[in-house]
Amino acid sequence: MIGTEIHQFAQELWPINRSITGSGVRETLKKISKKLPSLKIKSVQSGTKVFDWTVPQEWNVKKAYIVTPDGKKICDFSENNLHLVGYSAPFEGEISLDELKEHLHTIPEQPNAIPYITSYYEKRWGFCTTQEHFDNLKNGTYKVVIDSTFSQGELNYGEILISGKSDKEIFLSTYICHPSMANNELSGPTVVTFIAKWLKEVGKTNYSYRIIFIPETIGSISYLSLNYKDMKNKIFAGFNVTCVGDERAYSYIPSRNGKTMSDLIAKHVLKWTDKNFVKYSWLDRGSDERQYCAPGIDLPIASILRTKFGAYPEYHTSLDDLKNVVTANGLNGGYWAIRKAIEAIENNKIYKTTILCEPHMSKRGLYPTISKKKSTSGQIRLMMNLISLCDGKSSLLEIAEILNVPIWDLYEIIKKLESQKLINVSNL
Amino acid sequence: MIGTEIHQFAQELWPINRSITGSGVRETLKKISKKLPSLKIKSVQSGTKVFDWTVPQEWNVKKAYIVTPDGKKICDFSENNLHLVGYSAPFEGEISLDELKEHLHTIPEQPNAIPYITSYYEKRWGFCTTQEHFDNLKNGTYKVVIDSTFSQGELNYGEILISGKSDKEIFLSTYICHPSMANNELSGPTVVTFIAKWLKEVGKTNYSYRIIFIPETIGSISYLSLNYKDMKNKIFAGFNVTCVGDERAYSYIPSRNGKTMSDLIAKHVLKWTDKNFVKYSWLDRGSDERQYCAPGIDLPIASILRTKFGAYPEYHTSLDDLKNVVTANGLNGGYWAIRKAIEAIENNKIYKTTILCEPHMSKRGLYPTISKKKSTSGQIRLMMNLISLCDGKSSLLEIAEILNVPIWDLYEIIKKLESQKLINVSNL
Amino acid sequence: MIGTEIHQFAQELWPINRSITGSGVRETLKKISKKLPSLKIKSVQSGTKVFDWTVPQEWNVKKAYIVTPDGKKICDFSENNLHLVGYSAPFEGEISLDELKEHLHTIPEQPNAIPYITSYYEKRWGFCTTQEHFDNLKNGTYKVVIDSTFSQGELNYGEILISGKSDKEIFLSTYICHPSMANNELSGPTVVTFIAKWLKEVGKTNYSYRIIFIPETIGSISYLSLNYKDMKNKIFAGFNVTCVGDERAYSYIPSRNGKTMSDLIAKHVLKWTDKNFVKYSWLDRGSDERQYCAPGIDLPIASILRTKFGAYPEYHTSLDDLKNVVTANGLNGGYWAIRKAIEAIENNKIYKTTILCEPHMSKRGLYPTISKKKSTSGQIRLMMNLISLCDGKSSLLEIAEILNVPIWDLYEIIKKLESQKLINVSNL
Repeated sequence: MIGTEIHQFAQELWPINRSITGSGVRETLKKISKKLPSLKIKSVQSGTKVFDWTVPQEWNVKKAYIVTPDGKKICDFSENNLHLVGYSAPFEGEISLDELKEHLHTIPEQPNAIPYITSYYEKRWGFCTTQEHFDNLKNGTYKVVIDSTFSQGELNYGEILISGKSDKEIFLSTYICHPSMANNELSGPTVVTFIAKWLKEVGKTNYSYRIIFIPETIGSISYLSLNYKDMKNKIFAGFNVTCVGDERAYSYIPSRNGKTMSDLIAKHVLKWTDKNFVKYSWLDRGSDERQYCAPGIDLPIASILRTKFGAYPEYHTSLDDLKNVVTANGLNGGYWAIRKAIEAIENNKIYKTTILCEPHMSKRGLYPTISKKKSTSGQIRLMMNLISLCDGKSSLLEIAEILNVPIWDLYEIIKKLESQKLINVSNL
Repeated sequence: MIGTEIHQFAQELWPINRSITGSGVRETLKKISKKLPSLKIKSVQSGTKVFDWTVPQEWNVKKAYIVTPDGKKICDFSENNLHLVGYSAPFEGEISLDELKEHLHTIPEQPNAIPYITSYYEKRWGFCTTQEHFDNLKNGTYKVVIDSTFSQGELNYGEILISGKSDKEIFLSTYICHPSMANNELSGPTVVTFIAKWLKEVGKTNYSYRIIFIPETIGSISYLSLNYKDMKNKIFAGFNVTCVGDERAYSYIPSRNGKTMSDLIAKHVLKWTDKNFVKYSWLDRGSDERQYCAPGIDLPIASILRTKFGAYPEYHTSLDDLKNVVTANGLNGGYWAIRKAIEAIENNKIYKTTILCEPHMSKRGLYPTISKKKSTSGQIRLMMNLISLCDGKSSLLEIAEILNVPIWDLYEIIKKLESQKLINVSNL
Repeated sequence: MIGTEIHQFAQELWPINRSITGSGVRETLKKISKKLPSLKIKSVQSGTKVFDWTVPQEWNVKKAYIVTPDGKKICDFSENNLHLVGYSAPFEGEISLDELKEHLHTIPEQPNAIPYITSYYEKRWGFCTTQEHFDNLKNGTYKVVIDSTFSQGELNYGEILISGKSDKEIFLSTYICHPSMANNELSGPTVVTFIAKWLKEVGKTNYSYRIIFIPETIGSISYLSLNYKDMKNKIFAGFNVTCVGDERAYSYIPSRNGKTMSDLIAKHVLKWTDKNFVKYSWLDRGSDERQYCAPGIDLPIASILRTKFGAYPEYHTSLDDLKNVVTANGLNGGYWAIRKAIEAIENNKIYKTTILCEPHMSKRGLYPTISKKKSTSGQIRLMMNLISLCDGKSSLLEIAEILNVPIWDLYEIIKKLESQKLINVSNL
């Protein structure tokens, strides 16, 4: 099961302190490039204008912790990188518990969870801890140490291009900016890494593939500001990949358009993977589809997910881990949903019968020579129905929808009919 | 509450004997013009050909009553103008009860109601009374007096034009031809009077407004025969206003087309006014929409009503009064439904973001600077969703439907985004 | 009841041994041409290439039976032509029961039914019998006699053309290749015979009618290979007629397109004939619609049926008879469904009011001269609604759907309005 390998890779990436910039991002990309040697690690300088935004300074952390009045070290960043508010400014000083509390973040309704908090665009500092821990803090003087730096540096991302027969591209995007969290985020880059590995191994595909590993929001905005005109010309379909690692659900978020090839494929694959899959609306979006489908950008990008960000209790807390939330099984399901979607896009062509009226199938050994009641059920019926719909106009996906079968049930029949020269194929 | 003022005005118009022609119509229009000084009172001569119809002679009544064998005056027109069949020919004579009964109209299933009956295009005479009264009439000789006249005169109507920035017109039509009845009819002209007053006061609107007070059927046919070519060029949306005064329901009758701007606006406003509003079909029509939406006329006119004509028991009887049926509250609801529809048309423009990808809202103070789980709910989420839909193609109404909120919830946000130069506006 | 005549004709055709070729087909066509003297009997030579198929040799049978070890004659073709597998090769010999059983066909789950089996395109021989009979066969030597011949001959079909005002054609196809079975098949050619008789008698129709009686599959493929280009130009609508003789259901099979005039008409007629009529999909097809609607052929042919082939237990067995399955009542219903569909196509024109706004109906005596509550219900309301929809764009079928009445309820009103010159008519 490929899910096991993916889970191992996620464990390897777990301890790294990722943020939207900094050494954690570079370290993550280096580990991915071990599996994908052709991955290119790229950069955008701090201060660069990207549409309405400015790429922020690089943030790096050496150490960060608090010492209690009893001399105990708590909220230690080296133990759990969620303890420090992302982009915390440097600070060192002794303060009272009351003063400290103004910088402490908890989730009262999830007393054993450390929340994930960031402040990318306004300088402040803070620590995150569990409500249970917070409630036991005693009065006295606390020592705070945050040894972090802001510097002119770069925002980094990884990119890989796999060329196919056509210049038209399938686009996959995933993000690498969250510290130690599993479904949102490590499921995304790890599944995409293994999808990219498979695409490299499978040999010449019909479409080309553009795959990026970026920090969320500022990363996709930066990437788009550099590439969107080219992307609008080339990208035929694509998916933003996140939250593909737990076992609780399969879900779909539409593109803004809602009717692109990516949407049709995602809904088809998910329907035949889990008939109870969750259909979200554009209003439920929250990740980089916000940028890819923004007005004027309008790329055909949908999302195939397991349980969506914000829709599970452990989201954006220390509880979103590789034990209780993300599993090898969960990742396996996420991988195969994305892969089946890609395979469906690759196979979704236009077929046309070469013969007027039904072909004489029995003379080709593809049909019984004796005619009895109910002699043409099952696969034979499916084949005859498929032929009857190969009109040179409908796509295989449309035909599968009419036949009410998964598109992958038709790949073998199509091959047989093509080899018998009963149908011709053309691209979409 | 404006409903109270409207109800007072309805009481003022109540006693006037309106019909499709005659002094009652003129008196009604004069009272309306006290509130709307720019109202023009216009006329079409008796005998004028209007499409397939001919404007009938003017009908006026001095007195009409019956004297019983005991010398009691009954069915006295001066007490209730519903007692006389509309357009009754003059008659004076003594007749038996049996003869009289052939000229008496009642509603057996509503024994305490005087029905409303007319005979505009065939000369006859008759009286209307309650079934209870009818059942107590004794044998004997009855004296009948109908002192009515038919004369070459005119059909009158009132018209007001309020010019806006655009030559495109919003059209409102209501009728003034029914004697003392409240929901069907006084709710219509009184609500429209106050809508017109508001439009005059509000200052320059985007659209121009053409508002007419006419006798039903022959009035709208006459008006159309004079104006329909001009109207087909100019009218962008509009409503026939009737039955807007009771408290029992909100209702909608579509245009024949069913998909005009008027239909979309009416359904949107009513959905957010009363989720149980009644959706009628074109086959349920019955007022001047019959003419405005006739084949070849095809104006985009829908109806926003409280309880529809024919759909409440007091309809076309003396029970349709200003006490038990039409109330200040009921009129208030009718007024605001029409007004919200007009405001929605005025605000229903096309918006386009000025920025590619999401704008950086926190630098403008429009978004939290700290990112926490669930930090962007409510109004902030609504604003971000709205921005994501300002694609330069969708109208604000379409966006409100996608967002599943009343369009009026968006007016303030739109203003804020316009003032921040985050969106551009263009007309439909 | 015309169903009685149709049932008598079916009894007359019952004993003939029909197959896809041979003397049984010719005999059947001759009997049909007694009722339809203008029927032309046509032929295609054995060995002719028709698209992907080849017209098979002619098959004729002199005698066929088995003699049991006790000397009893069983499975005698002269008693029931279903006993012999269609297109059985000649054979004469003595064989053991075990050997014989390899050539015997039964239906274990329908122990009293003789199945209908054919082997048109592979030479074999076989007999069909009931499971009950099969179970009682004793060991011993059986004598088998099949005196059948294959010869260069012809495939026959009948064709009749009835010309109307327009060159556009309505197409009816039915088949004549099954031996003694009633719903599938005799209901088809017998009902079509009486429909054709009616069309001849009714005088000049608007459309021309092309009606064929053919062997199923190879017959329709042969006919199409000769005529499809002409048919694609001319055929406006049509039906494949089969299984129109039992009383259990009304059913509809769509054309592949699903939205042709034939589909719209079929669904309309069936909805108003039996609100529980069964709507099948293209995937449920099984008769000559497979050819008429094949990709590249694409004729607008739908099916109106009683109980569909394959959907009733007696299908393709000796139990599909003229007693328990097909009745005069059942055939009557089938006949009228087809006829109402044809009448609907003939009447489905475009109407346009000649008058702007509502016409003044009371001056024409078509409307009450006195206006009372509820005075315009029923037929008057229907007439006014109809007028309001005669916009010169909608067809009468579309109008009937909006009015939610059977199209035939409108024929009389349309005539009245035409005679009053209130509407103009034009063809689709």
